[in-house]
Amino acid sequence: MSLKSSTQSSGPTPEHFFQSINAFQLTQALRGAIDLDVFTAIAEGNKTAKALAESRQASERGMRILCDCLAVTGFLTKAGGKYELTPDSAMFLDRRLPSYVGGAVEFLLSPTLMQAFEDVAAAVRKGGTVINNEGTTSPDNPVWVRFARAMQPIAFGMAKMLTELIKLDPGKKTKALDIAASHGMFGLAFARQYPNLEVVAVDWANVLEVGRENAEKVGVADRWRALPGSAFDVSFGVGYDLVLITNFLHHFDPSTNEKFMRKIHPALNEGGRAITLEFVPDEDRAEPPHAVTFALTMLVTTARGDAYTFAEYEKMFAAAGFSRSELIQTPMGIERVIVSYK
Amino acid sequence: MSLKSSTQSSGPTPEHFFQSINAFQLTQALRGAIDLDVFTAIAEGNKTAKALAESRQASERGMRILCDCLAVTGFLTKAGGKYELTPDSAMFLDRRLPSYVGGAVEFLLSPTLMQAFEDVAAAVRKGGTVINNEGTTSPDNPVWVRFARAMQPIAFGMAKMLTELIKLDPGKKTKALDIAASHGMFGLAFARQYPNLEVVAVDWANVLEVGRENAEKVGVADRWRALPGSAFDVSFGVGYDLVLITNFLHHFDPSTNEKFMRKIHPALNEGGRAITLEFVPDEDRAEPPHAVTFALTMLVTTARGDAYTFAEYEKMFAAAGFSRSELIQTPMGIERVIVSYK
Repeated sequence: MSLKSSTQSSGPTPEHFFQSINAFQLTQALRGAIDLDVFTAIAEGNKTAKALAESRQASERGMRILCDCLAVTGFLTKAGGKYELTPDSAMFLDRRLPSYVGGAVEFLLSPTLMQAFEDVAAAVRKGGTVINNEGTTSPDNPVWVRFARAMQPIAFGMAKMLTELIKLDPGKKTKALDIAASHGMFGLAFARQYPNLEVVAVDWANVLEVGRENAEKVGVADRWRALPGSAFDVSFGVGYDLVLITNFLHHFDPSTNEKFMRKIHPALNEGGRAITLEFVPDEDRAEPPHAVTFALTMLVTTARGDAYTFAEYEKMFAAAGFSRSELIQTPMGIERVIVSYK
Repeated sequence: MSLKSSTQSSGPTPEHFFQSINAFQLTQALRGAIDLDVFTAIAEGNKTAKALAESRQASERGMRILCDCLAVTGFLTKAGGKYELTPDSAMFLDRRLPSYVGGAVEFLLSPTLMQAFEDVAAAVRKGGTVINNEGTTSPDNPVWVRFARAMQPIAFGMAKMLTELIKLDPGKKTKALDIAASHGMFGLAFARQYPNLEVVAVDWANVLEVGRENAEKVGVADRWRALPGSAFDVSFGVGYDLVLITNFLHHFDPSTNEKFMRKIHPALNEGGRAITLEFVPDEDRAEPPHAVTFALTMLVTTARGDAYTFAEYEKMFAAAGFSRSELIQTPMGIERVIVSYK
């Protein structure tokens, strides 16, 4: 959502306003292209509006207008009436590749999320979601099953990155708790890397079915255990070396988070670590753009969630008994990692 | 809708995709700020989230999150917890000023337009709007009353620009035909400048009520005549020196436009001019961004509309009997002017 006017003329102009108020058109154009699978069609060799229209049972005129928009907005290049994929589109929008991220629209543009953004003013007045009392954090909310399936390819890359940053002793029998495990990608990435690791995955029962499928797919189902229910209520047991808290804490207020951290502290072994993957804005909440604007998603979809700064997380973990926390910048940029030591 | 990734890293990243697929959030954040009249509140001296929340009966937390988003997206600046307007926001988003353009959301984000964009893929398949057979060009469509009221302040500036480009003989009795007159701004700008000019305004009857109000407001009602009905059906009469065709031709296919041009040709005096104000992309449809992407709005809201190039317009006017057409770049940039001589 971070768009600044690329050209600043000398005097004030309403151009940035009009471009931004119409930004939803870009969302819809891109969704249309994903729906029609235009990027894959180009990768398959259909380069003109005519060829693309034929390959997708669409009108040539509609295809020309859509592809011109995609070219102007940086998703295609165009020369001599032929469209080509940009390097980004070739890698991430060709449905035949495992790096395809287009499926994320199923979650990001789900009716639940679109509806939550429909009246931002009402959410600002109230100070939280207006879709219901708890927003998307209500028990067994089906949006998280959608999330699990749609966000899996992106989580795969993030999880791989996490295993490169966070190391375990491969020779030792270890145990990890995967909070809000969803598709299971984070715990499973560690399980694949460490054959002596056992993973306990917590999430709503309907969501954990997706995680279970994936555990079987990657062949670690015997070391992956589902623990269904609310992470605030279920009993974790003890003996964990890692607690993975990925994209979870942003849904709640600081005191709820602190209570949760107090609950995981005794579940960790001495020297155990809580690993938080989050949108973490800088202390002045001016950078990075994605982390700052993510707070708005929390405002409109949850009762009290937020994008917390590192100082805020550090304070919560310290109050819950953790000895120290450190912030790690990730190579992927958008999210950051906080390691909190028991 | 023209957004390119501002930072290009070395390898491919899905960042531009995620930013663009979430672009609707920017639309909604900005609409929320307009709804809450945040920009006027800042102009009135409320600089902190707390002061803004109090002035707008909103939560401080919600106001902080919204204003941080507005700062990250270039609508505000932020320093030491205080928000300030940018020069653009101060000029165009302070509701107390005549230059305020925030009211445009009533048209640009009207249910009709938002709905038209909901299934871009379906419109690409069909080659035209899927909201009904004629989209927004159906007779007496109420969206045009909304348009007339919402877009008036923007049209005021455009109309002023047009009177600087197109001159009439002030000493002579002259007559102008204002096609799809809407709020009446274009014809009225000429009527104010030329006391010997009579204006005949064509639009749906419900829309012309807005034009009539404005004609009375600016004191030229005695020289402004409403001609209600479809511009394709009503009888224009003869003796016109100017025909103003502002934001009209993009709704129709070339043969319909040509037929319309054939209808206005005999209504013009010898030496008379048709003045077309339009989104006109360059011949390769790669620039300017607004003109290229405007074609998508026509695809999803009309049966056969488009953003035509100058060569396309030139051909239509020539086929209808006009001797020559010339393209004028306007200082405001977004729209262009075509002058076609009888």
